[in-house]
Amino acid sequence: MTVAVIPPYDPNMSRWEPNARGRLEEAALELYAERGFDETTVAEIAERAGLTERTFFRHFADKREVLFGGQDALLGIFVDTIADAPESMSPIDAVGAALQAVAPVFEGRHKLARRRQAVVAANPSLQERELIKLASIASAIAEALRGRGTGETAAKLTAEAGVAVFKVAFDRWINEGRKDELPQFIRESLDELKALAAGG
Amino acid sequence: MTVAVIPPYDPNMSRWEPNARGRLEEAALELYAERGFDETTVAEIAERAGLTERTFFRHFADKREVLFGGQDALLGIFVDTIADAPESMSPIDAVGAALQAVAPVFEGRHKLARRRQAVVAANPSLQERELIKLASIASAIAEALRGRGTGETAAKLTAEAGVAVFKVAFDRWINEGRKDELPQFIRESLDELKALAAGG
Repeated sequence: MTVAVIPPYDPNMSRWEPNARGRLEEAALELYAERGFDETTVAEIAERAGLTERTFFRHFADKREVLFGGQDALLGIFVDTIADAPESMSPIDAVGAALQAVAPVFEGRHKLARRRQAVVAANPSLQERELIKLASIASAIAEALRGRGTGETAAKLTAEAGVAVFKVAFDRWINEGRKDELPQFIRESLDELKALAAGG
Repeated sequence: MTVAVIPPYDPNMSRWEPNARGRLEEAALELYAERGFDETTVAEIAERAGLTERTFFRHFADKREVLFGGQDALLGIFVDTIADAPESMSPIDAVGAALQAVAPVFEGRHKLARRRQAVVAANPSLQERELIKLASIASAIAEALRGRGTGETAAKLTAEAGVAVFKVAFDRWINEGRKDELPQFIRESLDELKALAAGG
């Protein structure tokens, strides 16, 4: 009988490095804010987090991915929620449901999100990356809407409007002094868009 | 009595090089389409247009500016139209008026616009530039709306929605087989956005 002495493969190595990803993210954002994104190295991020560079690269392809890696996860939630929305739901409300579905991802991350935004705002190439990511989210939403039978023009317009609502809601959540959580800002911003489009 | 033998300064040198800017633009788009944007030099553009490199640089800062130079002019029209819109006009309709105000710029330019879009679509760095330009147009529109008293959230949402309408309308104008002109596509797309936001 062979006794397994090697633990099962765990890509996060979480057994030995609890919450390595979160620690790396926090260390990276601190350093980007302190020294600037361009001036920060992966070695410094790993050191600040008390981890190795190898561990960093197990979690992130590069230092930019610390800022943008989460958006791919968002994209999946957007797309799945729209695909699963009841047929009777209008495109704009399916997108509204998708925006609400991603909100829990940001629970407890207000400070990190705020710091991330400041880092991106300070660096034109990161701003470009942000625009590209948002455009790819809009494309994915439009595709998901077409998948449930929404016409071409309506799919594109609704997707762009949805991303605009998300951007505005997120920005308000980060920067307004109010205690409300992201879902409340999403709801308000979507309602405001509807009122505005009604010519109000 | 001194006779003026030097003609008055004319930055476009239009007296000797009729429509130099248009000829350079057409030559550039042809070459970008034939060889790719990165592979085309300013010398080649000037040669194809039958003009000098010096003339090229009198009209465009670089070869990328051939594709994006016009957007600064659009921005001015957007902003002025919104600023001049009657106070009683809703933000979305002021933006609609601004979209209509830029439409004449594209009259007779269907073929050029179509070629330009293909060149941009084939080159990721040009796509990034396009996204940045559109984002700056949205910012300028939001600013113009705030200038007439629209609130922060409403200004941002309306500006983003307006840019989305313009993008979609422009894309349809370029790619749909219909004979309609751009203003018609803008009208239809704006109406569709309104209907969509109403949950239709």
